[in-house]
Amino acid sequence: MSDTILSDAAAPEQSRRGGRAGKRAGRPASFEQPAFRQLKNRMQPTRLISDDELESIHQASMRVLSDIGLDVLHDEARAMMKAAGADVRAGSERVRFDPALILELISTCPSEFTLHARNPAHDLRFGSDNVIFAQMASAPNASDADGGRRPGNQRDFRNFLRLAQMHNILHCTGGYPVEPTDIHPSIRHLECIRDFVTLTDKAFHLYSLGRERNVDGIEIARIARGISREDLLDQPSCYTIINTNSPLKLDIPMMEGIIQMSGAGQIVIVTPFTLAGAMAPVTIGGAVVLQNAEALAGIAFTQIVRKGAPAAYGGFTSNVDMKSGAPAFGTPEYMKAQLIGGQLARRYGVPYRTSNTCAANTIDAQAAYESVFSLWGAIQGGGNFMLHGAGWLEGGLRCSYEKMILDIDLLQMVAEFLTPLDLSEDALAVEAIREVGPGGHFFGSPHTQSRYRDAFYSPILSDWRNFETWNLAGSPTAMEKANQVWKERLAAYEPPPLDPAIREEIDDFVDRRIAEGGAPTDF
Amino acid sequence: MSDTILSDAAAPEQSRRGGRAGKRAGRPASFEQPAFRQLKNRMQPTRLISDDELESIHQASMRVLSDIGLDVLHDEARAMMKAAGADVRAGSERVRFDPALILELISTCPSEFTLHARNPAHDLRFGSDNVIFAQMASAPNASDADGGRRPGNQRDFRNFLRLAQMHNILHCTGGYPVEPTDIHPSIRHLECIRDFVTLTDKAFHLYSLGRERNVDGIEIARIARGISREDLLDQPSCYTIINTNSPLKLDIPMMEGIIQMSGAGQIVIVTPFTLAGAMAPVTIGGAVVLQNAEALAGIAFTQIVRKGAPAAYGGFTSNVDMKSGAPAFGTPEYMKAQLIGGQLARRYGVPYRTSNTCAANTIDAQAAYESVFSLWGAIQGGGNFMLHGAGWLEGGLRCSYEKMILDIDLLQMVAEFLTPLDLSEDALAVEAIREVGPGGHFFGSPHTQSRYRDAFYSPILSDWRNFETWNLAGSPTAMEKANQVWKERLAAYEPPPLDPAIREEIDDFVDRRIAEGGAPTDF
Repeated sequence: MSDTILSDAAAPEQSRRGGRAGKRAGRPASFEQPAFRQLKNRMQPTRLISDDELESIHQASMRVLSDIGLDVLHDEARAMMKAAGADVRAGSERVRFDPALILELISTCPSEFTLHARNPAHDLRFGSDNVIFAQMASAPNASDADGGRRPGNQRDFRNFLRLAQMHNILHCTGGYPVEPTDIHPSIRHLECIRDFVTLTDKAFHLYSLGRERNVDGIEIARIARGISREDLLDQPSCYTIINTNSPLKLDIPMMEGIIQMSGAGQIVIVTPFTLAGAMAPVTIGGAVVLQNAEALAGIAFTQIVRKGAPAAYGGFTSNVDMKSGAPAFGTPEYMKAQLIGGQLARRYGVPYRTSNTCAANTIDAQAAYESVFSLWGAIQGGGNFMLHGAGWLEGGLRCSYEKMILDIDLLQMVAEFLTPLDLSEDALAVEAIREVGPGGHFFGSPHTQSRYRDAFYSPILSDWRNFETWNLAGSPTAMEKANQVWKERLAAYEPPPLDPAIREEIDDFVDRRIAEGGAPTDF
Repeated sequence: MSDTILSDAAAPEQSRRGGRAGKRAGRPASFEQPAFRQLKNRMQPTRLISDDELESIHQASMRVLSDIGLDVLHDEARAMMKAAGADVRAGSERVRFDPALILELISTCPSEFTLHARNPAHDLRFGSDNVIFAQMASAPNASDADGGRRPGNQRDFRNFLRLAQMHNILHCTGGYPVEPTDIHPSIRHLECIRDFVTLTDKAFHLYSLGRERNVDGIEIARIARGISREDLLDQPSCYTIINTNSPLKLDIPMMEGIIQMSGAGQIVIVTPFTLAGAMAPVTIGGAVVLQNAEALAGIAFTQIVRKGAPAAYGGFTSNVDMKSGAPAFGTPEYMKAQLIGGQLARRYGVPYRTSNTCAANTIDAQAAYESVFSLWGAIQGGGNFMLHGAGWLEGGLRCSYEKMILDIDLLQMVAEFLTPLDLSEDALAVEAIREVGPGGHFFGSPHTQSRYRDAFYSPILSDWRNFETWNLAGSPTAMEKANQVWKERLAAYEPPPLDPAIREEIDDFVDRRIAEGGAPTDF
């Protein structure tokens, strides 16, 4: 990789060239990593609260839905809710749901389904004990240690997609890892979704920001997979996150997103952003009551749109810094909310979405402990789908190259933790213990020699050298190692194979839609 | 605090003076922190493996104990084991235990007991769902960001004790946080234990390094609490860690330690140091089999010495870096071993000891993620007593001032996570949600206003300022904040009150024993 890239904030295109040059010079095209695989969490999720306490949260949410109701700003959605039995009155946006109606509606949600990728090897199971990790989404800024912090742009956007494609632990992308603000909003979705299906062959997310964006995205997903519209109905091939406007508002683009996505049989993940002390009550109990009411209303609407449409329950409740009002992440309160969110999602039989978040401004101890606390809450909470799995920094305002490598390492460690232990007679090693005997050493034993290469997870960043060696090497921190790693890895990126006919069809569609002017930008 | 301290590696005494000067100048003597309290983990511990799999580990350990046996180097201990029914043959150090004998012996271990401190407010419950955090122990080196890394010495030793005393989340000390190598080994235990009972009023640990050290320590614990020898028998007032010499060796000082400590009714925590791939099989299953066999042999011996003596099961299984042989900590393998260790300890009805460890060389992301992964394994594993709770760096070769502050923050967050959530009608906040309504904001609501001050844990290190403000402040890392915090806090240290008559009795005893020459140094 050239020195230019090291000091160039906008590294991507050079980096690809660097990669090819590197390979010409005989450098390995790839790096060692665990294989792509569907993760499963076979451990019982942790229950933070008793079933009675869970019931009290459920009942409080039902009171919110039936007594207070939500404002639904989308006229057609409101009419559909009324037709389905909700309490909707003329001249008001307020919608109230009877508890029995909510429970009846969500009862048709599938508890498990497949999210199809353009490459079938990257298809993902949603729900049950399945665990999926997605890249971070929606940062307005990008950064790396060399180039610093900068507004989101297409080069960084594409680089992050390349890193997602290259790392098996990232099962799919999660929306725009960084917002490419140098592309006009009217056609941004077209350029970005084309990148999703050409730079990666993994499943992807569509933003619900107006009907055209959903429709275009669904069509590109269909073309990329080479299937019919009818087949698409039963083969979810993209997903959207629906963030309610907490408290208690469901806005027009979001409701339209559900209509388009659920109507086409695609996946809708309803995630209220209920910050305790800001858009939600200051008590975690109260914030979760609000989260639950809003999530259930959104999920119920997916079933009004299309019975059996795949949907998931998103938990994103956190607290604010009461001194500044800034959102906090990876806090004890956040962990509690994640565990309760999982208990609620399981109560309703809907897959559970979590996140890997932090509020740190750099890749220091804080970034790591807030992220691992987030992972702790997400995994022990029985999360099925983790958005923002890698890259998230600064409360989501920034996607960082170094944080992406750190998170990839953390997620790989979690995956290893979730991998069932070999407890065969041979692994229990009584004969090896006999052979080595008291006071002996296992380093040289045949039991060790035949296994040591793959015995343990080999971390990307952890520096296990002794102090003297590490000190002589210049006392590198994990941040510095991460900076080195992303550059080396990105340089080795190769685009995944894509049938030229499909590529042409995608380009034709995208180019035509761009020529038509894309989508309205009044959202 | 004077500039001298900032650049002086051996800060302690000045620091105390700095503290007094600081208070004279009107600085607050103290800082905000959660109150001292007995933590409880009300969540069901996580089962990594099934009951059948657990049974297979148990059975394999029983085969190790009955077929292979352990070498017990202490003649009297071996004789006592033989008298209790173990298979001991003339001319051999090997001891074999019948499974039924092991289970019968450990059945008299109390599942719950109290560790008494000199200050009764600091008494601790061991076992059941109780959680205790102890400071780190036994580092040969100390460091801070200003003075760098240095061999252990009395000034650092005392400073770490002061920090342990000041922080309520550290329920007790855990041995010498750093080895004060500037005190002659013959009298080191006397000086150090005097410091334990004068600089702190919390419970403490005794090293089992020869009979005199245990006897002296038990006597000082008794004097400090002002109780009789007979009362001491039923009131554990100190504890020891017994590390077996893995594989399968129980050495003379360790067995002598059990004889002295269990004989006096004090707490013995048996912790094999079973590094998978080094002193234990390379498979985590095999390493845990060995851990379990050794731990059970040691715990069984506590009951041979004195039926009903308080004992605990220590899990310290980790893996090595197979490239260098260096021990790794906070790895996925370490987490798995911690969860299984908890399952085993609960199977035997004995309290479970864990650790908060890492292999990092500095306070970077690695130090944080390895520590939080350790905490995850320890807490979800149902750990009752965590040694090395604060300060541990560099695989235990170093106690760091900044790491101590980081760990105190992490432990305080874990404590907050363990604190039951308020799910009262008022906390569920349906009325507050009604009042604020759709599109409103909770910042100004009475429900928020009456609660916001204590609503959330207020972290020591987390920097939640927005990027611009943080950047203008010089982009401080958590490491830099920790450096500032320990100096401010240590400067405010005040020794806990101590009855002058007891103080005199302690000094008389310690001074007499020092005059006698202390203890042999041939260990």
